[in-house]
Amino acid sequence: MSNCIVAQSGGPTSVINSSVVGIIQANKDLKIFDNIYGGINGIEGILENQIISLSEYDPKDIMDFKYTPSSGLGSCRYKMKDISESTEEYDKLTKILNELNITTFFYIGGNDSMDTTAKLGKYSKDNNLGINFIGIPKTIDNDLICTDHTPGFGSAAKFISTSVLETYLDSSVYKNNGIFILETMGRDTGWLAASACAARYFGNAVADFIYLPEKPFNVEKFLSDVKTTFDKKNQVYIVVSEGLKDMDNNFISTTECSKNDNFSHHQLGGVGNVLKEHILDAGITSRVKVLELGVLQRCAMHCASTTDVEEAFRAGYEALKYSSDGNNGCMVAITRTTNFPYTVTYSLAEAKNVANNVKYFPSEWINEEGNHVTKEAYQYIKPLIDGTPKYKIFTK
Amino acid sequence: MSNCIVAQSGGPTSVINSSVVGIIQANKDLKIFDNIYGGINGIEGILENQIISLSEYDPKDIMDFKYTPSSGLGSCRYKMKDISESTEEYDKLTKILNELNITTFFYIGGNDSMDTTAKLGKYSKDNNLGINFIGIPKTIDNDLICTDHTPGFGSAAKFISTSVLETYLDSSVYKNNGIFILETMGRDTGWLAASACAARYFGNAVADFIYLPEKPFNVEKFLSDVKTTFDKKNQVYIVVSEGLKDMDNNFISTTECSKNDNFSHHQLGGVGNVLKEHILDAGITSRVKVLELGVLQRCAMHCASTTDVEEAFRAGYEALKYSSDGNNGCMVAITRTTNFPYTVTYSLAEAKNVANNVKYFPSEWINEEGNHVTKEAYQYIKPLIDGTPKYKIFTK
Repeated sequence: MSNCIVAQSGGPTSVINSSVVGIIQANKDLKIFDNIYGGINGIEGILENQIISLSEYDPKDIMDFKYTPSSGLGSCRYKMKDISESTEEYDKLTKILNELNITTFFYIGGNDSMDTTAKLGKYSKDNNLGINFIGIPKTIDNDLICTDHTPGFGSAAKFISTSVLETYLDSSVYKNNGIFILETMGRDTGWLAASACAARYFGNAVADFIYLPEKPFNVEKFLSDVKTTFDKKNQVYIVVSEGLKDMDNNFISTTECSKNDNFSHHQLGGVGNVLKEHILDAGITSRVKVLELGVLQRCAMHCASTTDVEEAFRAGYEALKYSSDGNNGCMVAITRTTNFPYTVTYSLAEAKNVANNVKYFPSEWINEEGNHVTKEAYQYIKPLIDGTPKYKIFTK
Repeated sequence: MSNCIVAQSGGPTSVINSSVVGIIQANKDLKIFDNIYGGINGIEGILENQIISLSEYDPKDIMDFKYTPSSGLGSCRYKMKDISESTEEYDKLTKILNELNITTFFYIGGNDSMDTTAKLGKYSKDNNLGINFIGIPKTIDNDLICTDHTPGFGSAAKFISTSVLETYLDSSVYKNNGIFILETMGRDTGWLAASACAARYFGNAVADFIYLPEKPFNVEKFLSDVKTTFDKKNQVYIVVSEGLKDMDNNFISTTECSKNDNFSHHQLGGVGNVLKEHILDAGITSRVKVLELGVLQRCAMHCASTTDVEEAFRAGYEALKYSSDGNNGCMVAITRTTNFPYTVTYSLAEAKNVANNVKYFPSEWINEEGNHVTKEAYQYIKPLIDGTPKYKIFTK
């Protein structure tokens, strides 16, 4: 028999470790590999021989790991050079994997990680290396194509909608309430902001307005909407995605957008404060509060959804199963078969199709006014945030 | 028999409604009052006759209410005039209460609410009105004297320490990590920031430094500490209270401190960003992230502590019991009798002693370096954050 390795890449989520545990459990059941290695700090660390053996850990520790948020194996934002540019890293990696008799590499991550998976898969195939590369989807952004949703999104959506409901109640206590603006993550897509629609009170969404990057933001319309609602209800609850763009397709943000990371993404933040300034300038009210959920939304395991934890686990489990058939350069994908009751199946997608593509929030799920989402969005999100894991979160 | 009324005042907490339910349950058991009224928006609403009957609600709704965050009866920040200045409001209130045959007024709140309770109690006694005023402590700030701690603090402390652990894990995933700064509430006292010490990993506090308003902040010492730790660990986790003050006793904050509310409190925020600027200016690293927990820490019922929910309930229950003895102008207080196992007793304190006083974080619980808290602080906080209520949070 041979060995396999698993590594994590990109931003952490609450459930990314559950996928590692899924791989370990599947191998316990199916006995495909002798040993499961863990790569530390993704491909970046593996290239420096930062590799541990996961088979040596106590089963109790492994089960704890399933419910531990953040990338327990460490992460990276490392972009491999194109093969046409240089094969040095590819050859180095091949040597390291061969030395450990590793024949399958599982990479848990988002778009960029699938880019790496696709490149490595192609290089392996082209050079008959006998090493397969399989991606496992992970991102709170839910922006991967070829899969109904991504593990990590459900728990982020649950934390966001829970926080929206709680802060809505918190901001509704005075005779003269104000305007509350909650800013979610979501660089390019509105899935996270849209998940606020699941915060409901007596059956109605508590958010008066939800603004997504997919819909160009019209300030005049915004101020008119906010004023009308404030005059009527004496309070307004607004949810906005950090990636909101103006009519000219520029990010709306007070922070500089000039600093790029290795993948040329803009560093965003501050759109909530921009909206606040607009409201203050328009003289609607002086009582405007802004809350940025920040990294809490990607690590709040204490508010994880059972659906999400179990699907992340299962995605890892399925990846190992698929590895026995020699699949390479692909990603485990989730298909929703029915919504009521909620059921899914697992399959494989080409990693290269997923890589560097973006699944936008469907325009038909944005309401006509462009300031909220439809009931179809709620029906999509609801099953993903269901259930609270009973297991004690972490015990270290 | 006669009736009573309960109202809520000041900032919301996760468990302030539990105290209302405690009053209702105690009256069910002890049958002291015919009817329990609820005052809407505290004393401000009651003066406008905004009063509902709580006896009409379904027991199931009342039990839901025990686990619903934020001031369900509404709140206010209304400062009554001194009796020496005008008795108009006092007379108006007396008339309203008399019309409903109300002989006891329960006021759930913090320092300012105990000020109101003391003033009304005195006015009632001086004028033989036959109406008793009893305060029930509530504040996430934990800054009331005469009581070991205040209902509301435990749940806020639990959310803070949980978030510290989760964001610590989240900010530890890369080869090159940065500096994470978490800003808590705590205008005058450091109890909330100190609660971060309960975030532990393998037995050790994950926060490298905790800065409280009680200890004047020395920028040079701060930068030296941060640099030493960053050089050693390649990451630093810092917790800071919004009320941090410099060596000249001025608030450290980027936001204006000139806007005061009715009680002459400064509106704070932004200290985390000030510390970030210091770190950037000193060139320690450019990777500095700031997270303000904001109102989440006072409404995150999904992360409430069982100790806190039950003590808030019990404080209401005890208040009603005490009302049968004709107590007036006082507040229910909690005394910790033993720490292991954690046990408490309830008694009464003079509301006027509590009013407008502040219980600071003990200087002997701040470490010698002035940048963390001692094990005594941890032992104090630990029992208050214990347990997660099993009840479904809210079902509306």
